[in-house]
Amino acid sequence: MSSLLVVGSIALDTIKMPGGKIHKDVPGGSCSYFIHSAHFFNPVRVVGVVGRDFPKKHLDGFKKCKADLDGLQILPGETFRWHGTYHKNMNNRDTDALHFGVLGSFDPVLPKKYLDSEYIFLACSQPELQMKVLDQVKGKPLAVCDTIEIYIKDSRPALDKLIRRCQGMIVNDAEARLIAGEDNLVKAALDIHKKYRLQFLVLKKGEHGGFLVDKDGVTPFPAFPLAKIADPTGAGDCFAGGFMGTIAKAKKTDAKTLRAAVANATAVASYACEGVALSSLTKLTAAQVRARANGFVKMTRLG
Amino acid sequence: MSSLLVVGSIALDTIKMPGGKIHKDVPGGSCSYFIHSAHFFNPVRVVGVVGRDFPKKHLDGFKKCKADLDGLQILPGETFRWHGTYHKNMNNRDTDALHFGVLGSFDPVLPKKYLDSEYIFLACSQPELQMKVLDQVKGKPLAVCDTIEIYIKDSRPALDKLIRRCQGMIVNDAEARLIAGEDNLVKAALDIHKKYRLQFLVLKKGEHGGFLVDKDGVTPFPAFPLAKIADPTGAGDCFAGGFMGTIAKAKKTDAKTLRAAVANATAVASYACEGVALSSLTKLTAAQVRARANGFVKMTRLG
Repeated sequence: MSSLLVVGSIALDTIKMPGGKIHKDVPGGSCSYFIHSAHFFNPVRVVGVVGRDFPKKHLDGFKKCKADLDGLQILPGETFRWHGTYHKNMNNRDTDALHFGVLGSFDPVLPKKYLDSEYIFLACSQPELQMKVLDQVKGKPLAVCDTIEIYIKDSRPALDKLIRRCQGMIVNDAEARLIAGEDNLVKAALDIHKKYRLQFLVLKKGEHGGFLVDKDGVTPFPAFPLAKIADPTGAGDCFAGGFMGTIAKAKKTDAKTLRAAVANATAVASYACEGVALSSLTKLTAAQVRARANGFVKMTRLG
Repeated sequence: MSSLLVVGSIALDTIKMPGGKIHKDVPGGSCSYFIHSAHFFNPVRVVGVVGRDFPKKHLDGFKKCKADLDGLQILPGETFRWHGTYHKNMNNRDTDALHFGVLGSFDPVLPKKYLDSEYIFLACSQPELQMKVLDQVKGKPLAVCDTIEIYIKDSRPALDKLIRRCQGMIVNDAEARLIAGEDNLVKAALDIHKKYRLQFLVLKKGEHGGFLVDKDGVTPFPAFPLAKIADPTGAGDCFAGGFMGTIAKAKKTDAKTLRAAVANATAVASYACEGVALSSLTKLTAAQVRARANGFVKMTRLG
């Protein structure tokens, strides 16, 4: 076990499914998904903010995951809300509305006991805010960041500076293309890995799996095959949770650990897609996660 | 070694690249790519047709692959021509023109010596024509078919009949979705495998790899990671060639052989993408193919 810190959003999501069904104010946000996936491997220290309207039952859910919530601010005002609609194939979605609420003026202040954190995941937010977390931490943590298109376009100098201070990065295909200015995803991943002198980079492609790039080169991997997807919201953050949880638990990032991290991350992310919001994750046992990760390793072995 | 028969198109392609460069009348068609990939594992008996305009050097290329050309008809008239333009990302393309020439009235008559063929690949053409090949063969060959959207839409009863007579199928994502009437690719692959009682099905997703479905379930696999793609034309037919060549050589379709076939198929298909038309395949050695296939097996091993 190590100390694993996550900073990111905690939200109440309203998700409209292709059939028209609406799930209103379900728990969401990168932190929530990260907590509910990383804890199968390593408990999480949380830096985030919610409004006083955030239901206690969701906080209890975090506590059940043995999350340390001392860095979670509960402020007067409303919790961040995301409204989205999935297209028929569940691979595309539209953001219908964003209500930032208390997240709009979020100032991530780390409790003293968090300052020695060894593993840090900076879920996507303004690079300046992500940097502020790194600035507070003592020692030499292993930091991994995510980002989204708006910051790649509008905050590039800050983002560049941030990535240079990170050891790893987990991004999706569209983000990698934008960062690298390169359409070929393999080249984009290799370019980013090299340019920012990262130890490792994971480029996620949703239902198509992704690439891990490290000093040994490119490891392409498929997604876990799901014949039915209930809700892919947060799958990327679950992938990050499973990945970071694995390396934090192992206390290393050698080739073998990174590949095990990919398998664990794929397993929890696939479970996340089988239920709406956190619903399948909250019912999950560590044994189930282990079984699916092992199954995935076996299933993808071609010789 | 076994007797491996392919029936399909032999073409002269004119390919317009994203940069504007045009490759005129380069050798193409499913048969050509299949011959140039399968021969690394097992030689091929060819059933096809070209016009008298088909350059001798391309026929010599087939012979170099130890292809049996006794089933290749050379008729008065023009060889089938395909004109296509690739989009910027090389993953999409438009068909600009099709000139069927002698392929338009192609009647696949098998030389007597082909009638005992043990492995048969029916590259995409009218299901009635594919069936005509099966009708001539004696014994119980292992037949695998491909198809395209037009026949799924316009010749469904004949196609259904054909697939039921095949032991395997190799199709792409769009085709699988259409055949199954199902958007989720995993479910589409499982449904097709079950409905037509196939021994195995490969669903190809281009740069995203694909799925193998057999009695053991779903094996998802990524594509070989290429940082540069010169020309993806024929990659799917090369995949089929590497796949069929492997099982014909092994003379079996057990779980281990099918997975080795996926690795070999992925290796030759990736080489095909590294040069325009057949150019990279003609320079390739069996040792290089073996090395890439082994590298791919190792590279995708997560634990």
